[in-house]
Amino acid sequence: MHIIKNTWIFNLSFYSYLYECVDAATPTEEMNGAGNLMDFLDEPFPDVSTYEDFHTIDWLREKSRDTDRHRKITSKSKESLWELIKSLLDAWSGWVVMLLIGLLSGTLAGVIDLAVDWMTDLKEGVCLSAFWYSHEQCCWTSNETTFDDRDKCPQWQKWAELMTGHAEGAGAYVLNYFLYILWALLFSFLAVSLVRVFAPYACGSGIPEIKTILSGFIIRGYLGKWTLLIKTVTLVLAVSSGLSLGKEGPLVHVACCCGNLFCSLFSKYSKNEGKRREVLSAAAAAGVSVAFGAPIGGVLFSLEEVSYYFPLKTLWRSFFAALVAAFTLRSINPFGNSRLVLFYVEYHTPWYMAELVPFILLGVFGGLWGTLFIRANIAWCRRRKTTQLGKYPVLEVIAVTGITALLAYPNPYTRRSTSELISELFNDCGALESSQLCDYVNNPNMSRPVDDIPDRPAGPGVYNALWQLTLALIFKIVITIFTFGMKIPSGLFIPSMAVGAIAGRIVGIAVEQMAYHHHDWIIFKNWCRPGADCVTPGLYAMVGAAACLGGVTRMTVSLVVIMFELTGGLEYIVPLMAAAVTSKWVADAFGKEGIYESHILLNGYPYLDVRDEFTHRTLATDVMRPRRNDPPLAVLTQDSTTVEDVETLIKDTDYNGFPVVVSRESERLIGFVQRRDLTLAIKNARQKQDGVVSSSVVYFTEDAPQLPASNPQPLKLRRILNLSPFTVTDHTPMETVVDIFRKLGLRQCLVTRSGRLLGIITKKDVLRHMAQMMNQDPESIMFN
Amino acid sequence: MHIIKNTWIFNLSFYSYLYECVDAATPTEEMNGAGNLMDFLDEPFPDVSTYEDFHTIDWLREKSRDTDRHRKITSKSKESLWELIKSLLDAWSGWVVMLLIGLLSGTLAGVIDLAVDWMTDLKEGVCLSAFWYSHEQCCWTSNETTFDDRDKCPQWQKWAELMTGHAEGAGAYVLNYFLYILWALLFSFLAVSLVRVFAPYACGSGIPEIKTILSGFIIRGYLGKWTLLIKTVTLVLAVSSGLSLGKEGPLVHVACCCGNLFCSLFSKYSKNEGKRREVLSAAAAAGVSVAFGAPIGGVLFSLEEVSYYFPLKTLWRSFFAALVAAFTLRSINPFGNSRLVLFYVEYHTPWYMAELVPFILLGVFGGLWGTLFIRANIAWCRRRKTTQLGKYPVLEVIAVTGITALLAYPNPYTRRSTSELISELFNDCGALESSQLCDYVNNPNMSRPVDDIPDRPAGPGVYNALWQLTLALIFKIVITIFTFGMKIPSGLFIPSMAVGAIAGRIVGIAVEQMAYHHHDWIIFKNWCRPGADCVTPGLYAMVGAAACLGGVTRMTVSLVVIMFELTGGLEYIVPLMAAAVTSKWVADAFGKEGIYESHILLNGYPYLDVRDEFTHRTLATDVMRPRRNDPPLAVLTQDSTTVEDVETLIKDTDYNGFPVVVSRESERLIGFVQRRDLTLAIKNARQKQDGVVSSSVVYFTEDAPQLPASNPQPLKLRRILNLSPFTVTDHTPMETVVDIFRKLGLRQCLVTRSGRLLGIITKKDVLRHMAQMMNQDPESIMFN
Repeated sequence: MHIIKNTWIFNLSFYSYLYECVDAATPTEEMNGAGNLMDFLDEPFPDVSTYEDFHTIDWLREKSRDTDRHRKITSKSKESLWELIKSLLDAWSGWVVMLLIGLLSGTLAGVIDLAVDWMTDLKEGVCLSAFWYSHEQCCWTSNETTFDDRDKCPQWQKWAELMTGHAEGAGAYVLNYFLYILWALLFSFLAVSLVRVFAPYACGSGIPEIKTILSGFIIRGYLGKWTLLIKTVTLVLAVSSGLSLGKEGPLVHVACCCGNLFCSLFSKYSKNEGKRREVLSAAAAAGVSVAFGAPIGGVLFSLEEVSYYFPLKTLWRSFFAALVAAFTLRSINPFGNSRLVLFYVEYHTPWYMAELVPFILLGVFGGLWGTLFIRANIAWCRRRKTTQLGKYPVLEVIAVTGITALLAYPNPYTRRSTSELISELFNDCGALESSQLCDYVNNPNMSRPVDDIPDRPAGPGVYNALWQLTLALIFKIVITIFTFGMKIPSGLFIPSMAVGAIAGRIVGIAVEQMAYHHHDWIIFKNWCRPGADCVTPGLYAMVGAAACLGGVTRMTVSLVVIMFELTGGLEYIVPLMAAAVTSKWVADAFGKEGIYESHILLNGYPYLDVRDEFTHRTLATDVMRPRRNDPPLAVLTQDSTTVEDVETLIKDTDYNGFPVVVSRESERLIGFVQRRDLTLAIKNARQKQDGVVSSSVVYFTEDAPQLPASNPQPLKLRRILNLSPFTVTDHTPMETVVDIFRKLGLRQCLVTRSGRLLGIITKKDVLRHMAQMMNQDPESIMFN
Repeated sequence: MHIIKNTWIFNLSFYSYLYECVDAATPTEEMNGAGNLMDFLDEPFPDVSTYEDFHTIDWLREKSRDTDRHRKITSKSKESLWELIKSLLDAWSGWVVMLLIGLLSGTLAGVIDLAVDWMTDLKEGVCLSAFWYSHEQCCWTSNETTFDDRDKCPQWQKWAELMTGHAEGAGAYVLNYFLYILWALLFSFLAVSLVRVFAPYACGSGIPEIKTILSGFIIRGYLGKWTLLIKTVTLVLAVSSGLSLGKEGPLVHVACCCGNLFCSLFSKYSKNEGKRREVLSAAAAAGVSVAFGAPIGGVLFSLEEVSYYFPLKTLWRSFFAALVAAFTLRSINPFGNSRLVLFYVEYHTPWYMAELVPFILLGVFGGLWGTLFIRANIAWCRRRKTTQLGKYPVLEVIAVTGITALLAYPNPYTRRSTSELISELFNDCGALESSQLCDYVNNPNMSRPVDDIPDRPAGPGVYNALWQLTLALIFKIVITIFTFGMKIPSGLFIPSMAVGAIAGRIVGIAVEQMAYHHHDWIIFKNWCRPGADCVTPGLYAMVGAAACLGGVTRMTVSLVVIMFELTGGLEYIVPLMAAAVTSKWVADAFGKEGIYESHILLNGYPYLDVRDEFTHRTLATDVMRPRRNDPPLAVLTQDSTTVEDVETLIKDTDYNGFPVVVSRESERLIGFVQRRDLTLAIKNARQKQDGVVSSSVVYFTEDAPQLPASNPQPLKLRRILNLSPFTVTDHTPMETVVDIFRKLGLRQCLVTRSGRLLGIITKKDVLRHMAQMMNQDPESIMFN
């Protein structure tokens, strides 16, 4: 027997990804430092797992393993009552995991909300009666507060007032300004240090990586206990530091970590990567559910945006987890208003057909913002990856925080937390509103009910607010581009929504004032009689927020449903939908990928998008390895390879597995054997089986021939041979191959012609081919 | 060359289904009578379609055909501006179809609602001022009506009053009774006659058939124009006749007919069965959206219950169609209350933990009802199919209508339309409620706001209502079993909900009275202080309705979301969910199939359920044909079959296609050729190509050998050969095969061993095998 040597890469083991991923997460030295710790915490039994780190799972195999397990339990359950109970417990474990995920992620979300609230206010001042109270809580408990002065109460003191005794004046302002920056720097320094030292994977929003993991990739430790802990803590720090980032994306990551944590309680989930991903999909739903207080929106987000394999059973369980999480959060009541979210809104006026024009314009703005943001952010992240910049993550965070705090403090709309800003922008101006944005000139004769205030001319406060909002808009647009992707937990939902909400509110006030001053214009005539309430600027803010979020993430149904759950009225679905559709179309015209897909591409994760349609005319034969001038495929024969040959092959190559053929001449395929199984089987046989030596022949046939005793004993390995490897013919169109890989979750696929083995296609070959085709003629996939 | 003869059934063409389906719809003679008319209306070009009636489509092929089409348009679009515009129009046609579906199905739903309202009241009396007014509309327009006597106005006269002048008395009662029955019989006779004569497919709810169609089956005319028209008309008649049926299921069928109608406007959809099914999925969502005024619930219903292939693009479009439909319906405003549904509810009291006990009991009731209903209904439908009973559909409808009307009239809760009944049961008793159900003993000192009425002792009206409701419950349970499945349009949602709502309301009143009279009991102590409003019987009715609907249909998420959209409050999701989960579990314990799956099984449709998990240990070799003692597989060889051989094979067999092998000895597979293509190609060649005679050899190889001129010319057929047939090895576990069939939508799959062709598995073989395995040990698939 001759030894097979070849150099082409067979199921490349994704080692190249290792570096890319680590690079994306953190420079390699930190990774190694923390890696040991993480491994210790997350993988108590490294031998148990079937897949190596940064490898792709085989969905079909996982599924059939689960069926086997299930079959075993079912047949055992008939034996005794105890086994029956065990089988019932097994059937219920899915629901138990969901319940636990809901409880923990709801609790964590509540704790994060409370902590952020407190620490954000800590940058400006402190509550004297109890330092752990936020500004709002502090003044609630105060008896000396009248309703008009809700924000001012003696218990709450700004730092300058506390230190110098003077609340007003230039000195106090400068001192407050200085301390604001100092606190921000402290928080962000703590955040980035914790991430670097303890959990490099805790940075970013996590959604691109979770999408990749759910599509069947292994990133060990990404959803570990340590990541969970650090991400929760640093998320609070990062949001409190006043950086232009949100908690929504990271909350999804946190919820998925919870999911992974509870998976380890049940072998059903911990030992099966496919089942584990079902749980993680549901956990993602719970994460969005608590982020927005929108359980249905969360489930749809998981379905639409994050998940890969989403059977109906998971839909139902996701819904359960999302609901439990939402109710846990509500019972914690972090906002003190029995609501799930900070920006719950109620509008009282209907919208009119003519308003669709500004709504669609906001959609266009959202689409443009999405495109601009994605391009600029990806360019900046690429620069960070490829230049010296990436070597100083702490410095980068400190610098961006410093600039953010410096520019944010003077403007009241950027000084406060972004979610409060959005909340104020969404709000309709009721009679009791004391905000600057609601400073309209009141008619003294007005005696309408609180909710139905007619349109009024804008007062000086509104014009002042408009200026500040414009500045805030520019500031947010620029700073968000540099913030997303830094080495701290950073979500994108809130900053995107803020940009849209500011733009929307500005447009809304403009339309409102136009309608008030020109109610005789033909477009306003029908619906804007004087004295009527016809334009709700808050609705414009909400539509703008939806448009901008849609432009960046390309969410569709889930976006509209989340927004619908915020407003609670079916009325406003049409404006939201108009803006979301427009925004998606405009953004798609400039590039198909949303921000998450762009980051996946940037980091080179092996993610096969369900939505990309492959429309090229290539065939399997164009993609398969070996290529024309490559050495032949590394194969085993069913009855003529010796143990030594196999060992050499294993040593010389790093492929995940080897096809087994009848003979090297006929090349008729009979099966596929995993590298791992082969190594273990030979090691085992050499140790335990007498007569197995290097010159023993390995038999994959059903019966090994009876050899004379003098010959070395044969090694029978049929039991580790996969007799049903997936094959396609060389003439199969690649669109079909892509479809098969996507739908069946294959890891590799063998290519045959009239029963002869020609080559192999791995998931990575498919991805590489797709990328290649897309760069060649990107126009051809525009209209899908 | 010898002629291949064999008798085993290869891709059986589903002829046996033809009879079963027609049988399910109507006796064969009517079918033929209406068939011609329908064919003429629905299929102007019968030659164009690729599939025959009652055949299964090949999803992969449809998809690649669409990709080809799309590629062509894209490459053409670069040629000229006109082609570019055409390609843009093509890209937009999906949205146009959705818009049209939304508009038409919304309009039809509105018209149906108005017509049902009017005709239901017509059974009791007529509006003198305008006979086309329903009772409610008649008294609205009247000036002489006070608020208390909303139901009584001089313009509205009962038949007896109009004919004899006496409104009261035994004579008037008998006359009204008689006329009520007469009208009911007239309506139902009209309905069943129209269905029988014009559109046999218009009967039933349509959802089992739509599920089958969406899974890739062709039932020509099932979604035709004629069915649309007749189903709409007969639905109004059937509902108005007072039978125990609803309009929700049939509305889904109507919406799908609309979808099919608009597909024919665009060749993109009319010529591709796969694309058409995407549109139909969205249409189903629009149907539920208008049935319940729940667009999100509709989309989830389509996703969870009806659809088979539901890509994300369809999700987004379904949502659009569902919204357009809902808003169209609302602008028609059939209920005169700006609401989308008759039973919109608002509750003012929260629910308490302890109430979960009765809610879960209602869930158990719902599950039991679901089991009872499915078993009894299927048994009755089987009897109808197999005995003489099925030969007299008109008589059956008349008899059931007569009995229904006779029993329904004396009881006020069954006399009115079922949706009105549900609406009343759902309602919370406000201060202004005049219903018998709200006849509580009022405390004269009570001065609470309208919405917050404390619990009070029940008055005689309530006790009276309880009796009548109990009778109504028994009546509904029994009569619905016999009604569903008759040859008229009949939905199941409303009767199921009615059963649950009655049971729920009874339980609700019981709990309320218990809490009032025993508020010192330990369970009530915490939340039911005297003078507080602590139990909402209407909520119990809603929970009961959800439980019963869930028990019958096994819907989960969509059920909860639809109910959530009815109440509009996140508060009540938990009770609904608890009941829905319990009901599903209880019902599943007695049998996995919901009513739709049961009817699919009963009618023998080739439906491969996505939810059934196949957990047996069988292999592809156990399922494939030919079986052990069968004659060998009918195959063609690549270069040794003559034209005559092929023609004989086509004549002797009725298989859909034939595998092509290298030679009869090696049996190495090279491709698969469709029967249809083969027939056409030979016919064509015989007519147009010189030298092709019966003894010509058919070549499937790339190059035919150069033969001397004296020999008959070869016939080259490589272009019709599918070079990428789908194969699995004989050792592939059936669970994987089932998964592949399901996910890739295959029609057939070839079985090989080391490159040699062994046999074939068709979708029908898979279904038959699954049915066989399930009957053998149904316990093994209990806990999935």
